[in-house]
Amino acid sequence: MAKVLTSRNENYSQWYQDLVIKADLAENSAVRGCMVIKPYGYAIWEKMQAELDRMFKETGHENGYFPLFIPKSFFSKEAAHVDGFAKECAVVTHYRLKNDEVNGGVMVDPDAKLEEELIVRPTSETIIWSTFKNWIQSYRDLPLLINQWANVVRWEMRTRLFLRTTEFLWQEGHTAHATKAEAIEETEKIINLYADFAENYMAVPVIKGLKTESERFAGALDTYTIEALMQDGKALQSGTSHFLGQNFAKAFDVKFASKEGKDEYVWATSWGVSTRLMGALIMAHSDDNGLVLPPKLAPFQVVIVPIYKNEEQLAAITEKVNEVITKLKAKGISVKYDSSDNRKPGWKFAQYELKGVPVRLAIGPRDLENGTVEVARRDTLTKNVTEIEGVDQYIENLLEEIQTNIFTKAFDFRKENTTKVDTYKEFKTTVKKGGFVLAHWDGTAETEDRIKNDTKATIRCLPLEYEEEEGVCVYSGNPSKRRVLFALSY
Amino acid sequence: MAKVLTSRNENYSQWYQDLVIKADLAENSAVRGCMVIKPYGYAIWEKMQAELDRMFKETGHENGYFPLFIPKSFFSKEAAHVDGFAKECAVVTHYRLKNDEVNGGVMVDPDAKLEEELIVRPTSETIIWSTFKNWIQSYRDLPLLINQWANVVRWEMRTRLFLRTTEFLWQEGHTAHATKAEAIEETEKIINLYADFAENYMAVPVIKGLKTESERFAGALDTYTIEALMQDGKALQSGTSHFLGQNFAKAFDVKFASKEGKDEYVWATSWGVSTRLMGALIMAHSDDNGLVLPPKLAPFQVVIVPIYKNEEQLAAITEKVNEVITKLKAKGISVKYDSSDNRKPGWKFAQYELKGVPVRLAIGPRDLENGTVEVARRDTLTKNVTEIEGVDQYIENLLEEIQTNIFTKAFDFRKENTTKVDTYKEFKTTVKKGGFVLAHWDGTAETEDRIKNDTKATIRCLPLEYEEEEGVCVYSGNPSKRRVLFALSY
Repeated sequence: MAKVLTSRNENYSQWYQDLVIKADLAENSAVRGCMVIKPYGYAIWEKMQAELDRMFKETGHENGYFPLFIPKSFFSKEAAHVDGFAKECAVVTHYRLKNDEVNGGVMVDPDAKLEEELIVRPTSETIIWSTFKNWIQSYRDLPLLINQWANVVRWEMRTRLFLRTTEFLWQEGHTAHATKAEAIEETEKIINLYADFAENYMAVPVIKGLKTESERFAGALDTYTIEALMQDGKALQSGTSHFLGQNFAKAFDVKFASKEGKDEYVWATSWGVSTRLMGALIMAHSDDNGLVLPPKLAPFQVVIVPIYKNEEQLAAITEKVNEVITKLKAKGISVKYDSSDNRKPGWKFAQYELKGVPVRLAIGPRDLENGTVEVARRDTLTKNVTEIEGVDQYIENLLEEIQTNIFTKAFDFRKENTTKVDTYKEFKTTVKKGGFVLAHWDGTAETEDRIKNDTKATIRCLPLEYEEEEGVCVYSGNPSKRRVLFALSY
Repeated sequence: MAKVLTSRNENYSQWYQDLVIKADLAENSAVRGCMVIKPYGYAIWEKMQAELDRMFKETGHENGYFPLFIPKSFFSKEAAHVDGFAKECAVVTHYRLKNDEVNGGVMVDPDAKLEEELIVRPTSETIIWSTFKNWIQSYRDLPLLINQWANVVRWEMRTRLFLRTTEFLWQEGHTAHATKAEAIEETEKIINLYADFAENYMAVPVIKGLKTESERFAGALDTYTIEALMQDGKALQSGTSHFLGQNFAKAFDVKFASKEGKDEYVWATSWGVSTRLMGALIMAHSDDNGLVLPPKLAPFQVVIVPIYKNEEQLAAITEKVNEVITKLKAKGISVKYDSSDNRKPGWKFAQYELKGVPVRLAIGPRDLENGTVEVARRDTLTKNVTEIEGVDQYIENLLEEIQTNIFTKAFDFRKENTTKVDTYKEFKTTVKKGGFVLAHWDGTAETEDRIKNDTKATIRCLPLEYEEEEGVCVYSGNPSKRRVLFALSY
């Protein structure tokens, strides 16, 4: 069979693009920068959504829905936010088309111009805080813990499927609290939730940390992030949680009567993860044969391929397979039986390898005689033959093992590719090779900026877990008490 | 406690508006015509989505996601579609804002004008069929059964929460088939699925039927509809399923190689239900005290209110209540225990009545002594005292009874308000009173139109279930072989 993917070594970026398309995850659409998410890709996203949604609800959050459009003037209300967000946006200026009598087709009706332009939401703080104003009067209305699943639009010049698209899908949490301490606790709770999800479902190890001032969300006092390392040595910011202080409450005049009867501004957080997680999932684990999916997020965890020469053999195999399927389903394991007759087994094997199905079973007439089945693991590409009796239990254990193994592999890769450096020369050569670099930094935006201009590396975060350590900034030589995390990034 | 809702008799339309807002379902937003769906309302929508999504998947459909934006030129490709849809739309003309140096704030950057305007999708046939062109080559690729959950925008001049909003949430199914018969089968399968959902989950009886030519979806050869009757006697179109023939395949040049190796145009369907269903659900069952929810779609099915005078009593009640909650949850019944101390029981009773919680339990010190609990039904507003031992089984049965009762009540209401009429005089007086009117029609658009101008009544559908019957059109006196369904409508 012909190789369907460019190899990672040959061209990592092309490999990613090939993989997303060939594995039927997504494709570019007729609208510049907007993607079509194909059913197989969307099924993975749905699994992500289901787990995250459960985690949000278990921590007391409720879902709601706010308008797609935001009046232009709303963006000017929070000073820092306007600079960060009200720029590369899709702007609705008219509300009607009419028949084009001259050229045929339709044209924008010049008489249907909006008095105030509407912005397609790039993020919803402004429209949500203008709504919260009516929802919050007293401390009894707090905390308010709201999430929304939505599409957002940011006009990107250079787009890549899942990683950076003009329209993308995400969830955005927006919470309101009576005290600063409570809002910070919420911000931290969510970044921990995101890390839990990334590590235990996506099998992607992440570093939790704080963004520097220059990398913060526009309007936030603090931005927490989770940073993952991709196989090409670049970091991928995978989720952020923002402590917004009282900025949005002040911008939209949202006050509450405290227990003591005083009027006070509300404290806010916001946080989100997006279809970008799909990019992280794909790049963290996959290989030159295709996708490698963690069992917990695979649309189906097991595929069964019958090997047969005639209808009689197929019938006998199918009878046995149906028993296995019943047992697997009883254990909550999702399984697909591909007995289609228009493709050869070899083609099917390659296809399911490409699509990252964690476990593949193959069963032929000799297996029926011997009471055996061939089990292939996608993560290690190894095969072995086992007894069909009890294969359901075998597979249940195997799926757990695969989930753990994928995480461990990514964890080890990150460990091997995380380097402490102490000189700028070393910094530059290490950063260029890819991977995480832990180095001392003097804490100034000036140094951060110069390093970025010089090497393209950015401070991914100030990790939450770190050791205090006397040192000097690799760039300026000024004193520093801790190392921060640098990397090239997506 | 003060009455919170306008009564239905007083002003039905105001009653609806009051109810949606006071029961925390939705509210108008800062953006004209766009609503905010509040958490309690969204929780009901999520329950609807979950059931529908399960039903779609069980019938072989897969979810995907297509762009929010559609290039303007796409609308001109299907002749009938352009007239129906490319009119009252939100049009994106620019992709950047910039600081307004003169007036402050931000302004649209005139240099960032799009070459071709983008339309915010009012429905996605055009963008999806332009995509399907690449997905379909051979009969092996068919049928293609795709659904998407999405937001859409239709610029409405007069809006009402849930019933007609500029932005709304919906699902839109788009399927492609090798034969006409298969596509028609799909169209019918879905209208049956919608009717099943409306009747068995929403407890709203519906009439399935075909739309007349003038009421068809723009681009469809046939539109199937489910029509529900609201308490004010108006019909609400609650879901539609369209047989699109080969119109979109021809417009976007989507052909497939048949088994016989011939190139043929693909046959299409599309179908959708939206947050409008929320309006149907609210209006079909609710009363002057508030919402009445069918147990299968209630965010929580049971609320428990403790009646106590001191902390000691509350502790004893809570201990007993926790036992009950455990047993209810084991039966898959969702329950909320409201032991908050800042509101009196009477206030809570009214609040949960307003919110339509199907069953309310109240338990006080005397109940503890007697081993009893007070059970109140929202649908009948009746109360009785029962033994707390076995109350979980009692409630499980009661929830089923309530689900059935709500449906029966709505069914009887419809029966009482469905009238056969044979003269135009009778037609006019009956239509004016509200309800469904079954009358003979001569089958011409001209008559349909004149009746509409005369009485505001429209042909809701040609019911799928009907008896052949010789008669004459109520308006023209021309011969007719069947009655059709007329009503005033939303």
